[in-house]
Amino acid sequence: MRVAVPLDKAYRLINHGPVTLVSAAAGDDRNVMAAAWAMPLDFDPPRIAVVVGGREHTRRLIDASRELVVQVPPRSLAAQTDGVGSSSGRDTDKWSKFGLTWTPASLVQAPLVDGCVAWLECRLLDEPRMEADYDLLMAEVVAAWADDAVFAVEGRSVRLRDDVPTDLRAIHHVAGGVYVADGEVFSVR
Amino acid sequence: MRVAVPLDKAYRLINHGPVTLVSAAAGDDRNVMAAAWAMPLDFDPPRIAVVVGGREHTRRLIDASRELVVQVPPRSLAAQTDGVGSSSGRDTDKWSKFGLTWTPASLVQAPLVDGCVAWLECRLLDEPRMEADYDLLMAEVVAAWADDAVFAVEGRSVRLRDDVPTDLRAIHHVAGGVYVADGEVFSVR
Repeated sequence: MRVAVPLDKAYRLINHGPVTLVSAAAGDDRNVMAAAWAMPLDFDPPRIAVVVGGREHTRRLIDASRELVVQVPPRSLAAQTDGVGSSSGRDTDKWSKFGLTWTPASLVQAPLVDGCVAWLECRLLDEPRMEADYDLLMAEVVAAWADDAVFAVEGRSVRLRDDVPTDLRAIHHVAGGVYVADGEVFSVR
Repeated sequence: MRVAVPLDKAYRLINHGPVTLVSAAAGDDRNVMAAAWAMPLDFDPPRIAVVVGGREHTRRLIDASRELVVQVPPRSLAAQTDGVGSSSGRDTDKWSKFGLTWTPASLVQAPLVDGCVAWLECRLLDEPRMEADYDLLMAEVVAAWADDAVFAVEGRSVRLRDDVPTDLRAIHHVAGGVYVADGEVFSVR
């Protein structure tokens, strides 16, 4: 079940460095791509940074709308994640090509990709030179959601469960279609 | 064995989003801390971004030297990683407190932490407003090294091995001393 995550805990959804899917929409056009280079930037205000190449179709939609969703695909979406990361939405409808569906977000035009396990609805900060010079998008998280089979959300507490089924575990991109899946969760304190 | 990594492949050492150790030195003072918020920013020129809080002792050394090393600790250093991430080097010698040792880097003053499995020697780019406003350090990678038991480095090819022993696997910080270790390496192409 998709549950709301307190904004100042949204960073925990991507703190472990998984590969992400970035979605965006402008007018009737909506697209999705993969981004391994994403990380939290602050807790409160909740901010993230993600690199999206200037020639990507998704980037054009982000530039037009100033909005995006950064979401975490589980291992069961590994092939689709790699696929949307290796093709362009300029001349292909990636949704139908890769069998992906979406649900409207709560506060942004960008869609939530179904089947993911965490979603960060974001609006770009006003850092145009970072976008132009580094393809670095800096954004504020305005809403956050998690699959409660993967993250335990109880009041203000948000934690990755330690018994996530293999298919729902996050994956991390190594390079060239090779990924490493989340393994054992352990505590050192 | 520590082997040199081609600079345009340095991103592969942190592409999978592991927790990192950030080390820095200025004069006779050298310190090390943990940073989960680190990611590649570009292949060529090789650049990374990492968040280091403005009040951290390590940050003062980085500000003074404009240099840092971002390195990847394996699971065998999980307790030390958590320790140097939860204490300050201002009034404690973290090296002796946590039993960590270091080796001189090749091009920067910041030391290489022994026992890590990948090291990126970096010099800060000239982005002072990012440092001041977001604690975001943007840096160029000037030298990179990997433990060849973890990364296979052959000519221009650099890849995470798929048979890394448990103790040498990267770890990803979830929150509050909880980490998730690298699990299975798999390919979808």
